[in-house]
Amino acid sequence: MPITVVGSVAFDSIETPAGKRERCLGGAATYFSLAASYFTDVRVIAVVGEDFGPAEEAVFASHRIDTRGIEHAAGKSFFWAGSYMENLNEARTRQTDLNVFATFEPKIPEAYRDSDFLFLANIDPVLQRRVRESMPGVKLVAGDTMNYWINDHRAALLEMLKGIDILLINDTETRVLGGNRNLVQAARSVRGMGPRILVVKHGEYGASLFHDSTPKGRGTEFRAPAMLLEEVIDPTGAGDSFAGGFFGYLAAQPQLTPSAFRRAMFYGSAMGSFACERFGTERLQQLARPEIEDRYNHLRELAQID
Amino acid sequence: MPITVVGSVAFDSIETPAGKRERCLGGAATYFSLAASYFTDVRVIAVVGEDFGPAEEAVFASHRIDTRGIEHAAGKSFFWAGSYMENLNEARTRQTDLNVFATFEPKIPEAYRDSDFLFLANIDPVLQRRVRESMPGVKLVAGDTMNYWINDHRAALLEMLKGIDILLINDTETRVLGGNRNLVQAARSVRGMGPRILVVKHGEYGASLFHDSTPKGRGTEFRAPAMLLEEVIDPTGAGDSFAGGFFGYLAAQPQLTPSAFRRAMFYGSAMGSFACERFGTERLQQLARPEIEDRYNHLRELAQID
Repeated sequence: MPITVVGSVAFDSIETPAGKRERCLGGAATYFSLAASYFTDVRVIAVVGEDFGPAEEAVFASHRIDTRGIEHAAGKSFFWAGSYMENLNEARTRQTDLNVFATFEPKIPEAYRDSDFLFLANIDPVLQRRVRESMPGVKLVAGDTMNYWINDHRAALLEMLKGIDILLINDTETRVLGGNRNLVQAARSVRGMGPRILVVKHGEYGASLFHDSTPKGRGTEFRAPAMLLEEVIDPTGAGDSFAGGFFGYLAAQPQLTPSAFRRAMFYGSAMGSFACERFGTERLQQLARPEIEDRYNHLRELAQID
Repeated sequence: MPITVVGSVAFDSIETPAGKRERCLGGAATYFSLAASYFTDVRVIAVVGEDFGPAEEAVFASHRIDTRGIEHAAGKSFFWAGSYMENLNEARTRQTDLNVFATFEPKIPEAYRDSDFLFLANIDPVLQRRVRESMPGVKLVAGDTMNYWINDHRAALLEMLKGIDILLINDTETRVLGGNRNLVQAARSVRGMGPRILVVKHGEYGASLFHDSTPKGRGTEFRAPAMLLEEVIDPTGAGDSFAGGFFGYLAAQPQLTPSAFRRAMFYGSAMGSFACERFGTERLQQLARPEIEDRYNHLRELAQID
């Protein structure tokens, strides 16, 4: 079933120990869409500037991603420059130019309104909430956020959280949002804010799923490993790609069973690992479905005893 | 089959956000022995001072741990004081008094010489190597070390590493010893120094196993999760307890199959988690085998998809 995603489509300049790239196609909605496109149809809501041309459009088109919700505005697209020279696990931001994103007002095309799945990538929680409320018919809503919104826009974020089913954030964000250094207690606190399912991304250590107990008696916690990569070329977008694999897989399932969520964690981990293997979205653009299945099976083998 | 372990038996003063304890029984060999004692017979080689009395002896005796290799010397036992007030993942050492440990010369009782399994807990690699060479008949040798030996006693450490089958260290130690920020590459480098099996402990994120490919086609990497604990009372000795559970389980198996190593990782994780639930060795002293099986099954459920 199709997913609608709202978030940033941007240009990124990235420096890592493996090299540099100037102005490559990026943004949370881009990584999410590409990763999810291997599992289901994806529809994007975003805004871009005049620097977004046929080459960028072609990346979406070649993955049959619906871009009718990408508004073209006068000016430049959102631009981010970051470095991972000191720490591959955390970017040091060198420059952020919101450009056309500063006045972004998400507009939902009529053709998107039958979407059953909605993903609210990391943007102003006021906008996330507005999009969510404009699509009351969706069956499952997931979202992301970041420390900036947690620390400085808490009230708006808490309003947004009431309207979503699944939140995907990292360890630090969980601890800060939940107000507790212990991850289990922080996760419980966050789930009390609205999302009945919480996915905490641990970077190179994988990710944890916290949810309610189920009638089938599966545990309420689940942990998926991350790939042990020989080399991380560029970690930009790994979390968004995780979300795309996770939510894309779920959207393609006939039933959202506890086992489906567990498999989705592994597909998320697979897509996050691919994102790290090349700069920007290079690797995500060129995957074949058998490669994804191979990686899923590799991750299973990495974590399964028998 | 019995394990002989050489290492420290000590008194620890510990401060964590959950409280304080003065001079509780500690030391790597103590944590290791208690954890391993739930799986197999354990024999300890260590030195203690006059402050090690009947109460401490009784802890070992109640777990049928052979203490004939614990030498009683004039003076005080090894003493360590540490705090986890800022960071539960890493102790800040406040005081280290080697005391009788400063002149420790391990002596191996005749009764220990038929041990098939040998664990070299974190002590001077010169002593580790001497013990290993004094027991040429052992079938499997595992060891631990720390950054102090890696940085300042590298030559002696490299000699020791040639004589062991399994090394258990943490992420940072692996990266420093292997001379590579990438864990996979660092692990390969460390395994080239001698140990054919490397276990990297990731603290709250679990542990990874690196080993050779096997005829049964299981992968060469395996990752076990850590328990998601509601509260970490005291992480002291968690790594030694992991090693005790891991090596103790292996010593009790009829065959050291790849699956046995994978299960051993889960038992290691189980014992490490118990260590964190009370101060010092309190929790490890009072376990019942069904509790260990319950935790093993909980960890399986935490990580297994189907």
